Amino acid sequence: MSTTIAASFQGVPLSQLFPEQKEGWRGYIEWENEPKRKEIAARILKTKKFTPSPEFQLEPLPKTNPVLIGHRWKEYHAALGLQRIVDISWQTVLKEKPDMIHLLDFPYNGETPRKPLMQGKLTDNKLHFVRNHGGIPDIDEDKYELEIGGLVNKHCRISLKDLKDPAKFPQITMTVTLQCSGTRRIEQIQEYPGEGDELIQAPWGEGAIGTAVYRGVSLKKVLKIASGGIQPEAKHIEFIAADTYFKKGQVFNYAVSVPYRKVRQADEVLLAWEMNGEPLPKIHGFPLRAVITGVIGARSAKWITRINALAEPSLAPVQSQEYIYYTPQIGKQNVQYSTGFSIQNMPVSSAIIFPQDKELIVHDGAIELTGWSYSGGGNWVERVEVSPDGGHIWYAVKPEDLTEKHYHAWRLWKIRVPVDAEGWIEFCVRAWDSSCNTEPTFVRSAWNWDLHVTSSAHRIKLYSVNKTKPATAARLAQFAARGESIAPLTRPSEASLEDMTAFVEAMRKYPREPRTEN
Amino acid sequence: MSTTIAASFQGVPLSQLFPEQKEGWRGYIEWENEPKRKEIAARILKTKKFTPSPEFQLEPLPKTNPVLIGHRWKEYHAALGLQRIVDISWQTVLKEKPDMIHLLDFPYNGETPRKPLMQGKLTDNKLHFVRNHGGIPDIDEDKYELEIGGLVNKHCRISLKDLKDPAKFPQITMTVTLQCSGTRRIEQIQEYPGEGDELIQAPWGEGAIGTAVYRGVSLKKVLKIASGGIQPEAKHIEFIAADTYFKKGQVFNYAVSVPYRKVRQADEVLLAWEMNGEPLPKIHGFPLRAVITGVIGARSAKWITRINALAEPSLAPVQSQEYIYYTPQIGKQNVQYSTGFSIQNMPVSSAIIFPQDKELIVHDGAIELTGWSYSGGGNWVERVEVSPDGGHIWYAVKPEDLTEKHYHAWRLWKIRVPVDAEGWIEFCVRAWDSSCNTEPTFVRSAWNWDLHVTSSAHRIKLYSVNKTKPATAARLAQFAARGESIAPLTRPSEASLEDMTAFVEAMRKYPREPRTEN
Repeated sequence: MSTTIAASFQGVPLSQLFPEQKEGWRGYIEWENEPKRKEIAARILKTKKFTPSPEFQLEPLPKTNPVLIGHRWKEYHAALGLQRIVDISWQTVLKEKPDMIHLLDFPYNGETPRKPLMQGKLTDNKLHFVRNHGGIPDIDEDKYELEIGGLVNKHCRISLKDLKDPAKFPQITMTVTLQCSGTRRIEQIQEYPGEGDELIQAPWGEGAIGTAVYRGVSLKKVLKIASGGIQPEAKHIEFIAADTYFKKGQVFNYAVSVPYRKVRQADEVLLAWEMNGEPLPKIHGFPLRAVITGVIGARSAKWITRINALAEPSLAPVQSQEYIYYTPQIGKQNVQYSTGFSIQNMPVSSAIIFPQDKELIVHDGAIELTGWSYSGGGNWVERVEVSPDGGHIWYAVKPEDLTEKHYHAWRLWKIRVPVDAEGWIEFCVRAWDSSCNTEPTFVRSAWNWDLHVTSSAHRIKLYSVNKTKPATAARLAQFAARGESIAPLTRPSEASLEDMTAFVEAMRKYPREPRTEN
Repeated sequence: MSTTIAASFQGVPLSQLFPEQKEGWRGYIEWENEPKRKEIAARILKTKKFTPSPEFQLEPLPKTNPVLIGHRWKEYHAALGLQRIVDISWQTVLKEKPDMIHLLDFPYNGETPRKPLMQGKLTDNKLHFVRNHGGIPDIDEDKYELEIGGLVNKHCRISLKDLKDPAKFPQITMTVTLQCSGTRRIEQIQEYPGEGDELIQAPWGEGAIGTAVYRGVSLKKVLKIASGGIQPEAKHIEFIAADTYFKKGQVFNYAVSVPYRKVRQADEVLLAWEMNGEPLPKIHGFPLRAVITGVIGARSAKWITRINALAEPSLAPVQSQEYIYYTPQIGKQNVQYSTGFSIQNMPVSSAIIFPQDKELIVHDGAIELTGWSYSGGGNWVERVEVSPDGGHIWYAVKPEDLTEKHYHAWRLWKIRVPVDAEGWIEFCVRAWDSSCNTEPTFVRSAWNWDLHVTSSAHRIKLYSVNKTKPATAARLAQFAARGESIAPLTRPSEASLEDMTAFVEAMRKYPREPRTEN
């Protein structure tokens, strides 16, 4: 659908209605402090028709890359004269993340391909997953400043230069796994369709998770040193970001909050400028982002403009209306924001990365599997178990086959599981964390309308070909002699499956019908 | 792939190598009595490359009609100069079966659409399913004759005129359900891919079953009257048909057999010329076919040329190498024809036809479902039960809501099931037959490499919207007021899902976090 873009509103050119807020902050429009702008934007959006979000739950996913195209959100931006944000964002993707699975081109959602996901404990910055909610701002480091307000003892502004000065703020580094609550959503979609949000609930696989070492300052220390601490009634800390967000015809800056109780842990909420020893990539929040350990990735706001201390959680839509965990009987017919609970800490979960679903595996009586495991909320994974029979028998990963423990990071694992049976077998994995939590057994057990937190035992189907079995060894030898491969599974063999003399002999020994007695 | 067709073989034109056998039998090439022809055909086929069968198990099914195109089998025919068989077949389909789901265009496989499937106890001839294994011959009734040979007391030929003469052979009519053992195969494919036969194992839904009243003569009587009965060592009766069949580079006439013990039941094996009071359609075997009650449809051979009494089951490929039921751990790596058992009698099975999978149902506390149920081998369905919770609670269909009993036909059913819960719910159906057999609970329970006999409880997912619930009634009223529909489920609502004042009130009453005590 093409929308005609009005060049002006009541005689004022669009470019003057919604100007960039600050010099050196390209792509940053201030909305939250500008109610008049929000009102005009809503009026403009109301006059337009937008392309519906793509249907990919009741239809198979396209095999393209980008997989899905965010026409609707591009049109929202274009309608407000903000097409440049769309363009800059995609250029940034191509520069910083060329080798991703581009799940959604705008707002950019990119998934780590499977091989680099398992490359080691830390994920390469170029391949770490990205789940953005708006365009990517392009901010000059030396023009950056952070504003602190709300229920703090002193409102203030801090330049990045000051924030990075170790004489002013002590620096820390932390190994942190960030995870989108949409990780493995595709499994819920394959079971049942759910919320088709206008900002697409992306059909993530197992790659919406990644780990990096972040350098920055503790937010607790910043609030204390720069603002003299918070006021007694402050219970939540809100982050307001530079990116533009849309919800049901209204425009916002991206904003979320975390409980102050979390911030009070000096090493759990960072303001970070460095990722794996390099400056933050633009797509990851350059020059400054929040990193909230153990919590859904959506709280780790990027391109922060302001931090506010609040008495109650933020009422911004992402905090109040998104990332809510509903009971399975709530859905389009009755869902309200207050009827679910808010997703903060991430539960224990895991995934099998290799082999992949529906692979044909020729083996000698055992199959090797590798994957990740993670638990949020300050828990770490204690044990990983793999089942070769859909969840009855479980083999534990040996301690030496798990990467080291961190308070806030995943553990990669590998295991060699004995497999006798041939044909289709169902593997699944589950992790146990330091609070003795483990995972629901089936996707259905925790399916929810918004398709969040797919933490059930991850299942894959493998076609097992055990070459230690004589009949199988003989068949493989026949294939080899003809220069034929057993794969793909569905390709019929060119040759007869049995010598007809042997067949007749077998049929005489074990006839198809009982012998007639009369 | 285009194959260059040699116009001749060793100087003999193709048309003379493989001539039609009899005047008035268009499309009938005799192979079984012509070993030299078979050998030449195999040599020609060996020199060609053929298009692989379409991949539809590891890929989604196309949404076209015809769904799948039988390039490979068309090319087999073309390579032997038999393109006219392909052409005549498709013309016959368009004339006799224009409104089918054309699952495979050649050899023709057509499925009954869902509405006519449930129209009543008898299926309309124009809409009865068809599963052919070769082209459709076009035979003149007055040129038709049936040959009887093998271990009978007298070899003979009978004209159709004689066969239809009630003074010579007593006529009977029977209400018979015929079912392809591939019925509901799509459920097995969705679970796991399996055999990708060169003659496609078609991805049937619930419509490869149909019921008709056939008129003809009992085969038992024909063998007795025309051939003086069978010899003592004869235990199987073979049917050889006019259509051409291919298997791994060899050419055949379609042929199958049934145990004589079955034929001995005078009303269970018919030679039929009439279907629902009309002459057999060409596509269903005109002028004469076998109708074998209670047994997989493949045994009810069409366009019969010869009947042979044998001491052992037919060694023809369809009998010896196809329609075999394997244990789940047998597959491409080790399958042999003798390692499974031969599918003859059909087990008890059933299907939900309306509503269909993934429908959104707005209801007032109960959902009506309709479907079919059937058992073969002379059993009839005694009871049908529907579960609204995936197979824990079962509601029985009332006797008055089942169509009447027949020894060899299905029973259609309907039921209204109480449904309180909203959201995705899983319905399933199972039948119990007159031998107290019922169905396996899950597809996986009976999955097999050749993807036959999907007799597990048929499952559908429905999205339940119970308008007797106040929150749902309120949401439906909001949709109605805006002229919006609740369907499609994945389309996001245009309006906010909750008034923000009410939301804040709820959040103050039941806050997101525990109240701080210190």
